[in-house]
Amino acid sequence: MAGPEQDPGGVVALARALIRCPSVTPDDGCGINALAAVLEGIGFSVTLLPFGEGTARTPNLFARLGTGQPHLCFAGHTDVVPVGDAAWTHDPFGGEIHDGILFGRGACDMKGGIAAFVAAVRLYLQKTPRPRGTISLLITGDEEGPATNGTVRVLEWMQANGQIPDFCLVGEPTNPGEMGEVVKIGRRGSLNARITVQGMQGHVAYPHRADNPIHRLLALLGELTAAPLDTGSEWFEPSSLQVTSLDVGNTANNVIPARAQARLNIRFNDLHTGADLAGWIRTVVARHAPRADVSIAISGESFLTSPDAPVEALRRAVHAVTGHVPKLDTGGGTSDARFISRYCPVAEFGLVGASMHKVDEHVALADLKQLTAIYSGFLEKVMG
Amino acid sequence: MAGPEQDPGGVVALARALIRCPSVTPDDGCGINALAAVLEGIGFSVTLLPFGEGTARTPNLFARLGTGQPHLCFAGHTDVVPVGDAAWTHDPFGGEIHDGILFGRGACDMKGGIAAFVAAVRLYLQKTPRPRGTISLLITGDEEGPATNGTVRVLEWMQANGQIPDFCLVGEPTNPGEMGEVVKIGRRGSLNARITVQGMQGHVAYPHRADNPIHRLLALLGELTAAPLDTGSEWFEPSSLQVTSLDVGNTANNVIPARAQARLNIRFNDLHTGADLAGWIRTVVARHAPRADVSIAISGESFLTSPDAPVEALRRAVHAVTGHVPKLDTGGGTSDARFISRYCPVAEFGLVGASMHKVDEHVALADLKQLTAIYSGFLEKVMG
Ligand SMILES: [Zn+2]
Ligand SMILES: [Zn+2]
Repeated sequence: MAGPEQDPGGVVALARALIRCPSVTPDDGCGINALAAVLEGIGFSVTLLPFGEGTARTPNLFARLGTGQPHLCFAGHTDVVPVGDAAWTHDPFGGEIHDGILFGRGACDMKGGIAAFVAAVRLYLQKTPRPRGTISLLITGDEEGPATNGTVRVLEWMQANGQIPDFCLVGEPTNPGEMGEVVKIGRRGSLNARITVQGMQGHVAYPHRADNPIHRLLALLGELTAAPLDTGSEWFEPSSLQVTSLDVGNTANNVIPARAQARLNIRFNDLHTGADLAGWIRTVVARHAPRADVSIAISGESFLTSPDAPVEALRRAVHAVTGHVPKLDTGGGTSDARFISRYCPVAEFGLVGASMHKVDEHVALADLKQLTAIYSGFLEKVMG
Repeated sequence: MAGPEQDPGGVVALARALIRCPSVTPDDGCGINALAAVLEGIGFSVTLLPFGEGTARTPNLFARLGTGQPHLCFAGHTDVVPVGDAAWTHDPFGGEIHDGILFGRGACDMKGGIAAFVAAVRLYLQKTPRPRGTISLLITGDEEGPATNGTVRVLEWMQANGQIPDFCLVGEPTNPGEMGEVVKIGRRGSLNARITVQGMQGHVAYPHRADNPIHRLLALLGELTAAPLDTGSEWFEPSSLQVTSLDVGNTANNVIPARAQARLNIRFNDLHTGADLAGWIRTVVARHAPRADVSIAISGESFLTSPDAPVEALRRAVHAVTGHVPKLDTGGGTSDARFISRYCPVAEFGLVGASMHKVDEHVALADLKQLTAIYSGFLEKVMG
């Protein structure tokens, strides 16, 4: 066993233990239960929160230490994406270490991040045995899957039970290349639309007796894509509309088809709301194809967390450990932070994500130790 | 048997005899052979011209009476489209007459038209036993099908054998509602294009790392459809470009696809050539999608026959029999006239086409007799 100087707070040991649970989405309970036992050993009161029906229940947990203010919550997931078809150099569930690198599915996304936060709590409690505030963990076993019975349901339970924190830190990998590069303080929203234009079938030689739905679809898509939605905002990249499919399926050269369909996705920043964009789409469609069927799903609104405290405290903790002043960023895809943002301010900082979801996912032990130090420094700054 | 006053030139008897051959495309020979026998009986020298390989040979015939000038050719087809799935009131190959209406597949398209021309020749020869000019027939057994071994091949043979006429009359049904409405003196051309745009697949959250082929396709189709090709010409309707299909087939909302394809058809008048339009399409595509694959097939150029003699003679013959001054028209789809127009002037006049290709196809006996009178009047005017 490595001593405390080799394994501060036990981060490496816990990361290896968690990797050895093959908790492919949804976690069958092994990751959640192993973590529950560790947290209870530190003094947390743990509530297991399985949601869903019958044997398809998703395990989740909420753990709390202390009752005072401020209340800081760490959010994450124990489930991992499948190993994939390609061969791994090292057992994906073995927790093997070679030349200072820990290999395994979930090493950086995000069993390593969870282990670093637990280790940071241990180090913090060594310095501050009776913290005045509250530390909690919101851990789900279904982040990589449909996420229906995960973070969303735990947040509803927290709301119902007066457990909404003052601030939430999500431990997803945020650094593209090395530790300390990026703290995420927001995400763009996402909207999907399916537009189905009905026309009237006919022969190409008699277009005036038909109504070509493709020409209506081209006109409305032309208007929707004519200009950029915006040029970005203080903290966000420009919003982006991408048409993702066009579907008619007519193989007869001499026939005007009866129906044409398009699908599109919008990633939108804080200059828009999902409802505004849905209304805009419906207005443009109605102008060119009044009888079209428009189906719109908003899978997340954009959100932005103030870059002031506690984000500033996180930034300083990152700088103190890594020497980097991290960029405050809102780019990339979506994460469970979009659900948390409906209840409290949320920021994301974790490991280097370069190998996530890939063969031979791994994390440097040095990075695990740095993240532990960053999280414990952040706890000290925020909790006092 | 009906006497000559009930069946001038034997048009009704011949139409019934031809309908009783079930010569669904390609004619198995029964229609062509029956007609060959009738023509030889009148004094035509008949050349059977089967084209194609082995058992899939298409029967055709070229028949000629006389050797002088002018040379007038009648073109048509003995093959018929299938009976279809719906039930007929009368046997489609029975040649039944009810209340002055002859029922059967091919009644108007175009066994009735062939019978009317043969009957008209008989009537003309009664008046003019030794015509100074030449009357010929170009009859194919494959007009409703791929037409590969039909009129095109017979024309090549006629060219090689010095048999190209001075004028050709096609006996397709041209009248929408009643006899005498329309003489066709041209047809629009037809071009089909398939445009396949290659892009680079990617995630919708990172559009700058991908290349969305749909957006390139929308831009080029927007330019191709931005303005009408023309506003029509003296004898032609406006040209028309119809996009007939769009195909991507991407079901992943968060993925920018690698490929997008469109198909389009242009029906074009005498202000364009197929080559000009193909060049225009390639230029527009190259501007928006330099790596796109463009496949273009020109299935026919537009053509126009001068409305002077002998079209004027046909018009006067129609007027003398029906009391209508027929409209000179170039609308509608394509016919074998597009092939004939490469060799000589060609016009089209025949029966009422309302029931063609439908259940209970039929022709009024009165219409058959009118068409016989029109064709014999035309022969007198043109042949002298
Ligand atoms: Zn993750
Ligand atoms: Zn026909």
